[in-house]
Amino acid sequence: MTVFQAQNPNFEQVVRDSFSRQPFMEFIGAHLDMIKPGVCEIVVERQQGLTQQHGFFHGGLVSSLADSAAGYAAYSLYPENSTVLTVDFKVNFLNPSDGERLRARSEVIRAGKKIYHLKGDVYAERDGQNIHCLTGLFSMMCLLGKSDAPNLGREARTA
Amino acid sequence: MTVFQAQNPNFEQVVRDSFSRQPFMEFIGAHLDMIKPGVCEIVVERQQGLTQQHGFFHGGLVSSLADSAAGYAAYSLYPENSTVLTVDFKVNFLNPSDGERLRARSEVIRAGKKIYHLKGDVYAERDGQNIHCLTGLFSMMCLLGKSDAPNLGREARTA
Amino acid sequence: MTVFQAQNPNFEQVVRDSFSRQPFMEFIGAHLDMIKPGVCEIVVERQQGLTQQHGFFHGGLVSSLADSAAGYAAYSLYPENSTVLTVDFKVNFLNPSDGERLRARSEVIRAGKKIYHLKGDVYAERDGQNIHCLTGLFSMMCLLGKSDAPNLGREARTA
Amino acid sequence: MTVFQAQNPNFEQVVRDSFSRQPFMEFIGAHLDMIKPGVCEIVVERQQGLTQQHGFFHGGLVSSLADSAAGYAAYSLYPENSTVLTVDFKVNFLNPSDGERLRARSEVIRAGKKIYHLKGDVYAERDGQNIHCLTGLFSMMCLLGKSDAPNLGREARTA
Repeated sequence: MTVFQAQNPNFEQVVRDSFSRQPFMEFIGAHLDMIKPGVCEIVVERQQGLTQQHGFFHGGLVSSLADSAAGYAAYSLYPENSTVLTVDFKVNFLNPSDGERLRARSEVIRAGKKIYHLKGDVYAERDGQNIHCLTGLFSMMCLLGKSDAPNLGREARTA
Repeated sequence: MTVFQAQNPNFEQVVRDSFSRQPFMEFIGAHLDMIKPGVCEIVVERQQGLTQQHGFFHGGLVSSLADSAAGYAAYSLYPENSTVLTVDFKVNFLNPSDGERLRARSEVIRAGKKIYHLKGDVYAERDGQNIHCLTGLFSMMCLLGKSDAPNLGREARTA
Repeated sequence: MTVFQAQNPNFEQVVRDSFSRQPFMEFIGAHLDMIKPGVCEIVVERQQGLTQQHGFFHGGLVSSLADSAAGYAAYSLYPENSTVLTVDFKVNFLNPSDGERLRARSEVIRAGKKIYHLKGDVYAERDGQNIHCLTGLFSMMCLLGKSDAPNLGREARTA
Repeated sequence: MTVFQAQNPNFEQVVRDSFSRQPFMEFIGAHLDMIKPGVCEIVVERQQGLTQQHGFFHGGLVSSLADSAAGYAAYSLYPENSTVLTVDFKVNFLNPSDGERLRARSEVIRAGKKIYHLKGDVYAERDGQNIHCLTGLFSMMCLLGKSDAPNLGREARTA
């Protein structure tokens, strides 16, 4: 694993502020558990509303968590006055997401000028064990000079 | 677009029953808008809890909707006494998911014995226009002899 | 399918010149069969060296063809003095690539400022029929002010 | 990294025999450098015919190598009398494939009954250094009771 340096010394506050501006993260009860330069972990506790027909966490929810972790792992390395957009991601489902808690962890593999490549994994914690549920690859865009705040407006994703 | 025949004459009821057993779909307020052999559309109305920091639908939520539409498009073609699991999916984000409503539509491209390949797209409806937000490819597994009901147990995803 | 306008009136020559500078395309015997703004088709005839153990075209070769078609479909829409790089691609294999000829066709779905999203499909032509072998999604980067010629040097993929 | 056990004690011979039946691997000059249960490495030396317009290894060739390494890493864990098919793969391009040699390495992440999930990476070796060119995720199908030999016939990919 490559060790990355943050360009923005306030990266942690910038990431936490952005996370707190995502109503969907609050809606599902997710919290940002760890942020370091190029690495992010997001955790969510099991609740009935997050499950599918077999009682597992819903696959879409699992991939959402991984996508958010990847977005913030990338964002931690961005310069000031920038925002992050997902270009694409791919996820493989390895095992049922059956547990009391989900932990998504993502790491930057390659930081380009515009494009950041990341890997991400999600683990279900059950009875003290970690079950590997999902592995994925994510491409994130760094948008310079664009605000991360809600007033970005509709011209946001013209990348 | 290939036209597919359902193997199970009750496919619509089977799909609607399964959908109604997914607490996550109710949690986000999604409803199954259309189901035909090999095609499914799922719709969700905008609410604050589904958005990200720019006020758009959250990307993870958008991909969740597409994954569910793909799962049910595949499931509509399965024989009786089977269930569906996502093997993997890949999504590209094309435009911001900015609108009053999201519509995910998925179609089977290829129905194999075990593996179904699907495409899926999500559109945001805004002021009477459709904005193409996401396009993706999905691989779904057909698990024969496995119940779709919650008592499937923990051996479910040993595919 | 969206209809795109080329920014560069010489797009066809630019694309054909670039194609002719790809030794790998000559090595496998591929030729550029059609180029229009945002659309490209590449064809290769069957020869023993392109096959795998079952006598079909090798999957890697099939995806190579799709990747090249996607790259040139994107490149046809780029401004002058630019080059194209694949950010990532995803391919699903639908049927064996069993035929006398392969045809890869790719179309731009979304042309952004930096990122172009494309779909691509490969068909095997056998006894006058088309077999759908592969479908995929491709993300291409537009690198402005970079030469497409061999002297680009090693700083090329710092996108 | 999980350590896997081969089901077939002759796995190495089975894999090497299959590799030697792939004319495309010979065509590009690739050789199977290492095979262990669930891990495979394939190497190819640089030659002009494998390059693209900037003089790097062609991206399609790079992904072909990764796909083959993934296929054989999976195949090493299969039981006797089976063959391997790629369901889908996704590759992210990280750096230009600029070097004297390419090495693709793939490892099984999850071995299911039918579906194997793998990761794969390709490195360019240049002046004694390894450049990380590609990372990808691969889904492979295990086809039981199907021959890996050329007489498999046209019913092969009905998975």
